[in-house]
Order: sequence, then structure tokens, then C-alpha cells
Amino acid sequence: MAGKLVSFVPVAPDSHFPIQNLPYGVFRPNAEASPRPGVAIGDHVLDLSVLARAGLFSGPLLTNSDCFLQSSLNSFMALGRPAWKEARATIQKLLSAEESTLRDNTELRVKALFRQDEVKMELPAKIGDYTDFYSSKEHAVNCGTLFRGKDNPLTPNWLHIPIAYHGRASSVVISGTSIFRPRGQTSPVDTQSSPSYKPSALLDFELEMALFVGPGNSLGSPLEVDFASDQIFGLVIMNDWSARDIQKWEAFPLGPFLGKNFGTTISPWIVTVEALEPFICDAPVQNPSPLPYLKESERKTFDISLEVAIKPEEEEKASIVCRSNFKYLYWTMAQQVAHHTVNGCDLNPGDLVASGTISGPEQGNFGSLIELSWGGSREINLEHGGARKFLKDGDEVIMTGHCKGDGYVVGFGTCSGKILPARS
Amino acid sequence: MAGKLVSFVPVAPDSHFPIQNLPYGVFRPNAEASPRPGVAIGDHVLDLSVLARAGLFSGPLLTNSDCFLQSSLNSFMALGRPAWKEARATIQKLLSAEESTLRDNTELRVKALFRQDEVKMELPAKIGDYTDFYSSKEHAVNCGTLFRGKDNPLTPNWLHIPIAYHGRASSVVISGTSIFRPRGQTSPVDTQSSPSYKPSALLDFELEMALFVGPGNSLGSPLEVDFASDQIFGLVIMNDWSARDIQKWEAFPLGPFLGKNFGTTISPWIVTVEALEPFICDAPVQNPSPLPYLKESERKTFDISLEVAIKPEEEEKASIVCRSNFKYLYWTMAQQVAHHTVNGCDLNPGDLVASGTISGPEQGNFGSLIELSWGGSREINLEHGGARKFLKDGDEVIMTGHCKGDGYVVGFGTCSGKILPARS
Repeated sequence: MAGKLVSFVPVAPDSHFPIQNLPYGVFRPNAEASPRPGVAIGDHVLDLSVLARAGLFSGPLLTNSDCFLQSSLNSFMALGRPAWKEARATIQKLLSAEESTLRDNTELRVKALFRQDEVKMELPAKIGDYTDFYSSKEHAVNCGTLFRGKDNPLTPNWLHIPIAYHGRASSVVISGTSIFRPRGQTSPVDTQSSPSYKPSALLDFELEMALFVGPGNSLGSPLEVDFASDQIFGLVIMNDWSARDIQKWEAFPLGPFLGKNFGTTISPWIVTVEALEPFICDAPVQNPSPLPYLKESERKTFDISLEVAIKPEEEEKASIVCRSNFKYLYWTMAQQVAHHTVNGCDLNPGDLVASGTISGPEQGNFGSLIELSWGGSREINLEHGGARKFLKDGDEVIMTGHCKGDGYVVGFGTCSGKILPARS
Repeated sequence: MAGKLVSFVPVAPDSHFPIQNLPYGVFRPNAEASPRPGVAIGDHVLDLSVLARAGLFSGPLLTNSDCFLQSSLNSFMALGRPAWKEARATIQKLLSAEESTLRDNTELRVKALFRQDEVKMELPAKIGDYTDFYSSKEHAVNCGTLFRGKDNPLTPNWLHIPIAYHGRASSVVISGTSIFRPRGQTSPVDTQSSPSYKPSALLDFELEMALFVGPGNSLGSPLEVDFASDQIFGLVIMNDWSARDIQKWEAFPLGPFLGKNFGTTISPWIVTVEALEPFICDAPVQNPSPLPYLKESERKTFDISLEVAIKPEEEEKASIVCRSNFKYLYWTMAQQVAHHTVNGCDLNPGDLVASGTISGPEQGNFGSLIELSWGGSREINLEHGGARKFLKDGDEVIMTGHCKGDGYVVGFGTCSGKILPARS
């Protein structure tokens, strides 16, 4: 049924943005224009502020709302799932081939539709807080083996707690933003030496996905695991850039800090839970069984194929270095949200909650170079030229993801960033 | 000279808020009124929005600014030190006993001055990101000894890096906000058992101070240590509430998370660097010498006496359990700011950067109960009744701090919060 829905806006068969997707973002039509919410459709962006001003959001929850006249999606996120469903139904109807309102109104259509390659994407929300989980068992086992040896690679808490740390919200940037190679302190080479201060020599990516929080909860009021999904507005792809040498020297005992907070890239289009519903699948069985506050009535997740490619500056084509899937994650998003709030911590609309590196069972599924190169012990040959253990200046890292529907694709577009040399 | 400056507003000799202080906060005159910036003077608050509307900020930098018409101090913080000095000079002149503008204008005075006990204080800034350092050597040695034994209590990085982690901005609350005892996971009692889920049994305070960031830096552009002080708007007292049992079980390998993010309390009045200038003193000598990017031309800090008291619900009086001083900190605020940005991480106006627990050399100077009770191995007798290893429900923790001037006090007021029982 969903596969037969067609838009009057042309959509290529392999487009990430058919009428079944309708992801939200924030864009400027040109450098001078103010940012406003939009929805991706094929190669175009639909300006929601234009639709709102034309009075086209006439459902009961959105008719008097100014949420699409804002420069971020926070107000819309705060409204919750009934309003999200109402907006989706309105937009899907307006874009459908059978509906004349927008299709046959040339003036409105010209005002409301922009080519994606002519607009500038911005961060979709004002991110109040950004949290990064560590929810892939395969990734945790790989890191544990590399850093602490192959006996008991998982720390004793890992199978009981969706481990997480707070990241830096200010340095979350939109796909396409270049990243300066960070400088910082690295370990002394032996016990007689001093630490070094230099550009990171072990710069890495981490393939992650992240959710944007909806209405949230007030301080002191935890969210129950079976209702936690109501808080999830949608998902983006995220690259948690990591300087392994800086991270290693600084991270004990309080966790990662400067090894991570020099930049975190997200894809610009938030794919909603509604668009992902056809791709629900079972989440991994958990053994041991988690504590009751983390126990879901149904363990469900999404089947989202993920891919990472590296394009060296001197090469013409990007080479794929990792293929993974969101469904590998051991801890679900509902468990992450329930755990995050169990102590009363408050989540707010527009907060970003990331999955941690998403690795899978095979070597080709590992979601970071430190895993792929096994701690730098082996080189990864790039299919279209070059070889890498860690990232070089000029490398562009391109992540993407999609779900395969019946005759259509629900995709995430790309999350990309290029490494610039360290500033002198 | 400064000691002779007197306000026409009555100020008790032991008041924290004489005309030499003039700390900034945000308040509502009543529950319905909108929040606006104010300055504390004696038992009163001066409404800066009233002064701004009356055109009294007539200096070159503030004459056309709307920074005092905002509901937070972020815009004012963004203006930087020359504007801060101009505002201070204007306010100090308007409040002085010799100046008639405000003193003799009854209508303006009634509109602009409120009694502190009749207003509601709010967070002074929209905190984009909150970072917590770990800069007291005495505290790090105490924690290292308690958790890892008395041989090599400091981790190898500690004397080279001002260690820090990202905290949760959303759960930073203003003094006077009650804190629910958090629930969470705690360690299994032995290797055969499962972890427990229960209210924290080891609830603690941490005596800290925190700075508010001024103009900040853009992503990719580090701040040099000798210019880092330009970024410091002012200081507050902070209580980094900590659930030691939750923290212990969750914190390896990614650091503290739910053990900390259920609440962090700050005092409402930001004491500016200008007000603290008479109390500059030498910072501790560092050995080994830090790397050049952390090496200051002059190592200076502030002499600020700090105190923590506990008032059990059933007792009439609070008992002092800790006396410490800001000057004990091994890493200065300038070093913290330089380190935080050395990898290109951006700081923004209104960001909160905390010191970590401020312990001193003697047992009476320890800034947390886990240190004072030495890991819960000894009880602390409260002078006015009761004894504690960790906090009980109904306990109010009251922190305060001040600098002693010549005939006046520059104080921070109080940072207090009461523990409520865990929600069922």
C-alpha cells in the first residue's frame, strides 16, 4: 500500500527521499535567508514555513501552532507524537500526486519548493545536551580486547547498564563541515618522558546513529521503558570523530573529553519513527535478563543498513570500509531513554542521544578504524586506491544509511566531513 | 580606597553584597513577572532592565545594547570585558551615596529596587554546555587513595592534564531547588549476584566553584592560556551532588553519568572577576612544569574562603562540616580554559565550567562526605546534633564563600539544596 503512494514532485527510484520518507531538517534557501524547517522530497526541499503561512496545517493540533515558523525544530519536537502524525499526514497529502492544492498552485509551489543542491542545511535543532551511549556489544568487545586484552573484554557492568557519557553539544556540526585535525596531549613514550603536545596521529571516525528527543521529562520524573519510544522524534547518522591518542592519555578516570569534543557530525535530515515503522525488526536477545526497569514488553528495533566510505583527497572515488546495521545494537533506544532518566535526569526537546559505534559480528562490519585496523596493527586497503590505518589530512569520511522498502527506499542521505590539517 | 565607597542603599557590615561586589543574577520580581537581569546590593536587588529602559547605561558600549532587556545574562556575557567594566562603573556610580540620579528619584528607585527576600531567583544564564574539571590535587589524591589504594593515588596523567568530563547542562538548578534522592543500579555484592536497583544509599555533596564563560571561541580556534582569563565573566559556588554507589558501578570506562546528572546546584549571584581583583593571590607551584600551552606568565588565583554546612531536618541549626579555599586548586581557571579549547573545542557565552571538588590539605578542608568520612569508614559528628557518613533524606546542604576586604566582604551568598526521599 505504502509503496503505491507517489508524489507529484519527481523522485528517482533510488532516491533516499520518496513520499514514504519525509524527513525533517532546517535549511536556508540562500545565504541571506533565515533558517526554517523543511522536508526532503526527491531532490527538493519543501519549505514548511510557507505551508504554515498559507494556513495548510489545518489539523486540530497544528492549526494555531507557530512551530514551523521557528529557526529550529525544537518547538515541533516538543509537541509529541500526535502532532507529528498530524503533520506527516498533512505533508504526505499535499505532496501526493492525487492532491491538487500544492500541485496545481504554481505560485505556492515555486515559493515552497527548493532544489536541495541550492539550499544550505543547518543543524535541525538547538541541541541542549548531547549524550553518547556505548550500546554495540561487538564494539565494546573489540575495544575491550584491544585495550585490556582478550580475557573478559567486557567490563562487569556492560551487560547490565547501557553505558553512556555526556558529550559536547556545542561542537556538533552539520554534514559537510570540515574538521580540523585536533592538537592535544598524548602519552609519554616511557616512564622517564614527558607527554607530547602535537596534532593527533590516530584520528578516527565512529559510525553511529542518534535520536532527537521529543517532549522529554521533568527533573525527578523518570520515563518508563515501555513508554520511552514516545520520546523519540527521529534518527540521524552521526560521525563521532575520535582522536585515539588524545583519548587514551586523558580518559582515565573520568572518560573521554578532548579526544572527542573537537567535532561531531550529523546528517541533516531527521528520519521519523513513522517513516521507519515498516522496518521494525527484533532486537538481539539479552542474556542476562536486564533489571525490570530496562525490561521491555517487546524488544524491537529498526533494520537500517549503514555504510562508511573514505575518499582520500588524491583519489577520484570513495572506497567503502564498513557495512553495518542499526539492528545489531544490544541496547535499544527505549532502554537508553529509560536508563538515562531512571535517576530523574531530565531530557528536553532537541536533545541528541547517540548509539555509540555500531559494529557488527564480522570484520567488515566494524564501525571505526581502530577496530578495522585492529589497533593500527594492519592496513586497510581502499578499493579505489590508497590504504589506511587512521585518517590522513584531506580524507573525506562519508556515512550513509537506508531501509529497503517494497519499491522504494527510506534513506538518511549522507553524513560527511573532510579532515583539514591541524592549524598552526 | 575601595573600602570607602558606600551605597545609599543600606548594607549591613557583614553583608555579602556591598557596593564593592555587585554580582549579577536573573530574577523575577514576582511569580508572574518575566525574568530580568539584576545586581545584588545589601538585602536588595537592582533591576537592570529598569535602568536600561531609563537610558542610564549611556557609555559607548552599552548605550544601544538590549542585553539587560533579556531573560538571561548570555547577551551581556558575550560582550566581553570592556562592556563588563563599563556596566560595573555605571552601576557602582548609580548606587553610590554621592550620586543623586537614582538616590533622589523616588519613582525610579521604587521601580528599580526590590527586596531579595521577595523576589524569585532564576538560573543566570542559558547554559549551553557544562564541563566539570577535577583540579584539586588534594581531592584527586584522596579519591585515588580511597578507590585504588595509597600507592600512586594520582593517575599518570593528573599532573600533566587538567582532567575534566562533560556534565549535564539540563539538570543544573538554582540554589533552593530540592533534590530527589536518585534511584539507580549499584554493584552486585559478589560475582554470583545481580546488580541492585534502589535509591542511592551513598548520597554526597561536592564543594565546587564554577565560572561562566564570556565571549568564547569559534570551533577550531584554541584560546591561549595568557588570554584565557578574558573569557571568565565571573564565579558561582556549585554543589555537584553525587550518588557514590551509582557512580562506582557505572563509571568504568566512560566516566560519571547517572551518578551525577540528577542535579547540580549553583548559587544565584555571579561574582565578577572585577569584584574579585582585590583578592588575587599566588596559585600553587606546579611540579612537573606543565607543557608550554598550559604555562602561564603569571600563576594567579583568588583567595576565596569556602564553607559547607549540613542542616538535618530535625535539627534547628546547620553544622559546618568543611572549610576550604578556592586558592588550593592546582589547575587555575586560565589553564582549564586553555586546555578545554586546545583541540579546537568551542566555548560559548553562558557555558559553565566547574572546578571539581575543592579540598584542602587538612581533614577539615575536605570538600565531600566520601573524603570526610573516608569512604564511609568513620562518622562525622555534627556540632549542633546528629552524625553523618552520607546524606539522609531531609538534609539541607548549605555552601557559602566570601573574600574578606578592608572593611567590607565580597561574598557569594549561599548555594543550598535539600534532599527529598526517592520518588516511589
